[in-house]
Amino acid sequence: MKKETLVYEGKAKRLYQTNQRHVLWVEYKDSATAFNAAKKATIDGKGRYNNEISSLLFQKLHENEVPNHFVTQISATEQLVAETTIIPIEVVVRNIVAGSLSKRIGKEEGTILPKAIIEFYYKDDELDDPLINEDHIDVLQLATPRQLEEIKQLAYKINDILIASFDQCEVKLVDFKLEFGLNHLGKLILADEISPDTCRLWDKATEQKLDKDVFRRDIGSLTDAYEEILTRLKGVHHV
Amino acid sequence: MKKETLVYEGKAKRLYQTNQRHVLWVEYKDSATAFNAAKKATIDGKGRYNNEISSLLFQKLHENEVPNHFVTQISATEQLVAETTIIPIEVVVRNIVAGSLSKRIGKEEGTILPKAIIEFYYKDDELDDPLINEDHIDVLQLATPRQLEEIKQLAYKINDILIASFDQCEVKLVDFKLEFGLNHLGKLILADEISPDTCRLWDKATEQKLDKDVFRRDIGSLTDAYEEILTRLKGVHHV
Repeated sequence: MKKETLVYEGKAKRLYQTNQRHVLWVEYKDSATAFNAAKKATIDGKGRYNNEISSLLFQKLHENEVPNHFVTQISATEQLVAETTIIPIEVVVRNIVAGSLSKRIGKEEGTILPKAIIEFYYKDDELDDPLINEDHIDVLQLATPRQLEEIKQLAYKINDILIASFDQCEVKLVDFKLEFGLNHLGKLILADEISPDTCRLWDKATEQKLDKDVFRRDIGSLTDAYEEILTRLKGVHHV
Repeated sequence: MKKETLVYEGKAKRLYQTNQRHVLWVEYKDSATAFNAAKKATIDGKGRYNNEISSLLFQKLHENEVPNHFVTQISATEQLVAETTIIPIEVVVRNIVAGSLSKRIGKEEGTILPKAIIEFYYKDDELDDPLINEDHIDVLQLATPRQLEEIKQLAYKINDILIASFDQCEVKLVDFKLEFGLNHLGKLILADEISPDTCRLWDKATEQKLDKDVFRRDIGSLTDAYEEILTRLKGVHHV
């Protein structure tokens, strides 16, 4: 496998074409951003943690028959993925109130939701990723109603799998963001990453934050938090 | 019928109990507010226009079998309504892009939507009436999924009736806000008002604004705009 042209550079990753059709080479970067990139930093090791954690979790999802873009991890900071046309919707699944939901509905952070909530955000930096509903998605033609229904069913299934995976290592899955897309055959698959950048993860006993909120809110060492998550996941999941 | 104790005073109306059970006396005020009451004014005649316009439109909805709280108009600024426990959701129906939708989805004001959009906002001044989705409504227990489905069906029906009513007087119904509630028998009914305070109304030929945006954006005389709407509606609907 050979790395070829850079096809996309985002806030946290670089994607390259490879000499194999429909397979991309992903490099996780050491950059941390928050609040639509208004806050930025370079944090040594972050790329490695996210690549390792995301590889492990996407592998877990494959084992549970959740169709996803992950092919294989090829180094500490790199993985191969299936080429995917991303649907520009951030799918947020929430089990416990935190962050913007707390502000939106006026419920205290930490409130356990009686059932998982799904939210859709329009992935558009210029618009600051606004919350949208299914009518907006329809009018903007971001996804068909049928794709959206499939996305919701997959999101609930992924939530169940991830809750169980984190529960085994004494971590509460508060909320997380997913991105879906279509592979070269037009099949809907999970893409992007699942890491402490895209999840809120709290220690089960102490509720200590082990995710990007450590960086957003300046409440400790991001690498310590991410390393803790990786160590706990590896200890339990024997990858 | 006798007016008794004041039971509620909002930004635009006062509600009193009457000597008849489950019937309230509504007084429309001359106050204009916008941006969650950050902008305020007293505008002579506004109460009369809204009372007359809303009475006429709710009567029209009765004729079309849309269950609603309107009983009868009793003076230029007063009407009787059925007592209703309001569901704290603002139901916004949109036919043309304007206002917050333009900012949210990045489409130019005036863009005709391929189909009507429904949005739900959590009626909570402290939270600044945020957009919410059906999962939020469920978790906040604002309405049952069945009530919400009924609300959506009624909102589409009301939209059809209002589009036709305004079309007859050469006005485009851009968008509007509805509030629903339960009457004393627990039946879901339309409540609140339908007026240039709660609708965006544009002249069909010139696209001149004939609604509260005149006040929000300081682009002319609010009373001239509201009087124009009342005159046109009366001319066509012979109340």
